Amino acid sequence: MNRTLILDCIEKTGEDVKICGFVQTKRDHGKITFIDIVDRSGQIQVVLGGGKGAGLHPQDVVCITGKVNKRPENLVNKNIPTGEIEIYSEEIKVLSKAAELPFDMGGKDLDLQLPTLLDYRSLTLRHPKIKDIFKVQSAILEGFRKACLKRDCIEIIVPTIAASSTEGGAEVFKVDYYGHKAFMTQSPQLYKQMLIPVFERVFTIAHAYRAEPSVTTRHLSETTQMDCEFGFVDFQDLLNLLEEIAVEMLTFVQEKYPHILEEFKVSKLATGKIPRLRLREAQEIIFKEFKRDNRKEKDLTPQDEVDICKWALEKHNSDFVTITHFPMMAKPFYTHPDPQDPQYSLSYDLLFRGTEILSGSQRINDFEMLAQSIQKRGMDPKDFEMYLQAFKYGMPPEGGFSYGMERLTKLLLGLENIREASLYPRDMERVDVRLSKKE
Amino acid sequence: MNRTLILDCIEKTGEDVKICGFVQTKRDHGKITFIDIVDRSGQIQVVLGGGKGAGLHPQDVVCITGKVNKRPENLVNKNIPTGEIEIYSEEIKVLSKAAELPFDMGGKDLDLQLPTLLDYRSLTLRHPKIKDIFKVQSAILEGFRKACLKRDCIEIIVPTIAASSTEGGAEVFKVDYYGHKAFMTQSPQLYKQMLIPVFERVFTIAHAYRAEPSVTTRHLSETTQMDCEFGFVDFQDLLNLLEEIAVEMLTFVQEKYPHILEEFKVSKLATGKIPRLRLREAQEIIFKEFKRDNRKEKDLTPQDEVDICKWALEKHNSDFVTITHFPMMAKPFYTHPDPQDPQYSLSYDLLFRGTEILSGSQRINDFEMLAQSIQKRGMDPKDFEMYLQAFKYGMPPEGGFSYGMERLTKLLLGLENIREASLYPRDMERVDVRLSKKE
Repeated sequence: MNRTLILDCIEKTGEDVKICGFVQTKRDHGKITFIDIVDRSGQIQVVLGGGKGAGLHPQDVVCITGKVNKRPENLVNKNIPTGEIEIYSEEIKVLSKAAELPFDMGGKDLDLQLPTLLDYRSLTLRHPKIKDIFKVQSAILEGFRKACLKRDCIEIIVPTIAASSTEGGAEVFKVDYYGHKAFMTQSPQLYKQMLIPVFERVFTIAHAYRAEPSVTTRHLSETTQMDCEFGFVDFQDLLNLLEEIAVEMLTFVQEKYPHILEEFKVSKLATGKIPRLRLREAQEIIFKEFKRDNRKEKDLTPQDEVDICKWALEKHNSDFVTITHFPMMAKPFYTHPDPQDPQYSLSYDLLFRGTEILSGSQRINDFEMLAQSIQKRGMDPKDFEMYLQAFKYGMPPEGGFSYGMERLTKLLLGLENIREASLYPRDMERVDVRLSKKE
Repeated sequence: MNRTLILDCIEKTGEDVKICGFVQTKRDHGKITFIDIVDRSGQIQVVLGGGKGAGLHPQDVVCITGKVNKRPENLVNKNIPTGEIEIYSEEIKVLSKAAELPFDMGGKDLDLQLPTLLDYRSLTLRHPKIKDIFKVQSAILEGFRKACLKRDCIEIIVPTIAASSTEGGAEVFKVDYYGHKAFMTQSPQLYKQMLIPVFERVFTIAHAYRAEPSVTTRHLSETTQMDCEFGFVDFQDLLNLLEEIAVEMLTFVQEKYPHILEEFKVSKLATGKIPRLRLREAQEIIFKEFKRDNRKEKDLTPQDEVDICKWALEKHNSDFVTITHFPMMAKPFYTHPDPQDPQYSLSYDLLFRGTEILSGSQRINDFEMLAQSIQKRGMDPKDFEMYLQAFKYGMPPEGGFSYGMERLTKLLLGLENIREASLYPRDMERVDVRLSKKE
């Protein structure tokens, strides 16, 4: 008999089916055992007769053949799509036995401390609510790509090994490259710019590496960036693009997995017109409304971000707020200064529900000005030979932005730690197993 | 005036438009200059009057305002979509000046030796025919994803930094990871398997690193793999899946960019039923039809691959041929032996027009057997702790496969060197600039 996906059993009441999946939970009642089976499509209750449930354990992999029955009215489970049916079976085949679990996985939530959650990552990811985090993440990726393709962007794959530390400053991972010194790229930034004269509009899903020796709830050593870059655009075009893409991407997620967002108690996107504030305007609002004077700071503080988002939701019914014109010296060398007021830059962050999820800028597209900007930061234009080549032979006005995939996932689902938003997170203390175990 | 994309000018005959793009070629005729302008949508001829063409150079970035005219019948260019029109203008704005080009970029082909092609990569990628290689590559990615999503695969992002050399054997790049030794992953293989109990079906576009000290037309140090993995499948299911996905992916490319495939003189896909041969059967055919006795070899030779594809096209009208049952010892530790004949494995390659583009296998899903297989290869199961954890707690029968993105691009377009199929290729001698320049 061919396998039927669990969700498809809904259409097969009264028929015999074979389902295959993992034992999620098990309740023995003498000769009868109730087990919940999950496969990629859903979960279903199986009533195992004939003593066939003996010896079964959670996470055992099984195929079960039996009849799909309607449940009695008073036993309907309204929380799952298959809640009106169950399968009665006396025929079970165990494909793979699971070892005894180190903790209970049957609850609605998996209440574990982070170190345990990660020590058993290959197991804990199977918990339905943990798994759902990454279904949402895959929808974020899909929504991002759809929004980019719709706007004529070409997908590019850019290298992660580079000859020089791309943006200076932050710490980088060193690679032994055939006896030469090389680095893991801190972002796809320079490559996406170099490809503007080729494709005019590009996007990439890229790995980015930061060797920051920080153990916080916000830092990962290896992250995923969703980057776009656009040629022949001005600052207003860029603001429109980043806001439209953010809203389209998150609306796609909301429409694809409404029940997961509900499960995580996430409210519907508030998509009023997104307010755009210069940094100084935002700080003025913080000063007036929240009585903190940060008007001379070069960036919003974490509490400022929370508060200005609160303000945006109240006054503009928007979960987003765009902050522009950060001071030039707080931004990387390729950031375009504001011609009206060159100590500020044509840069922007997008905040979402209390945290920045995107940053970017219009870029310097003039070759001479760019080389000078590199020099002014104490770097050597010779280390940027291939990058500068793209500007030497003609570069249109251009700019772009970058969303942090893990950060966006964390924020959307209200997770406490960014490690929960990475399948196998990399940090100072862990590469799957704890590094201390290795010494 | 708002910008009009070049391709949209076709609908605007008689109207005034503003186009923006790069000067591709320029021909002076006294006060009149003919220039070809390209943007992301296409190419168009502009007739510049009033001496405005003086001082213009190829790759200058310009905006031009003028009137769209029908060309005289005898001057229609049938090779481009805009061949029936041209723009007459006396108003040009230069957005960015290009330096003088080191070689002519105006020809239909860019006849450069590989080192020059790569030394000037940020420039040479702009040549229309080089650019088209990567449009096709982006369509390969899109086609692959569509085929995976259609089959319920969840997209996963897996780490590239690992604590142990994943598959033994081939050389790996070492990373200094906060003072610990770590490696760049040779493939996403182990992670995609670990995620089968979570999602049942997964796919990923992943970077893979090989520190092989080889300078051939087939080797890159950093490549892109398109990987899938499926749970609850048997060997026949896997063969069906890999063949269906390959055909869907390449059909998508063929339908998206027919004119590029024509430009590269690529024939239409021959999609007769794909022949499936065991390695030994394929070698028997090679022996009988091509008189080479390789019947004891553990793999097909490059010439065998060419010949068996010739055979498949002639006898089965198929551009593909699937080879199965490679000797067990020629395959990685996770490969499932054939229960009927355990010295052979449940493995497969897919050949396309003369070269392997995919390999994969059914995997060992039994925890004990897998740990033993690791040990038998002289490796330590302790180094695979997180990987083995996925099997310890129940793993269904599973398998998968991996397409090499650059190799597939090279093969589809008939490129000579795999470096031509990577935007910024990484090899022993080069990280954008030549490594010899650094010492």
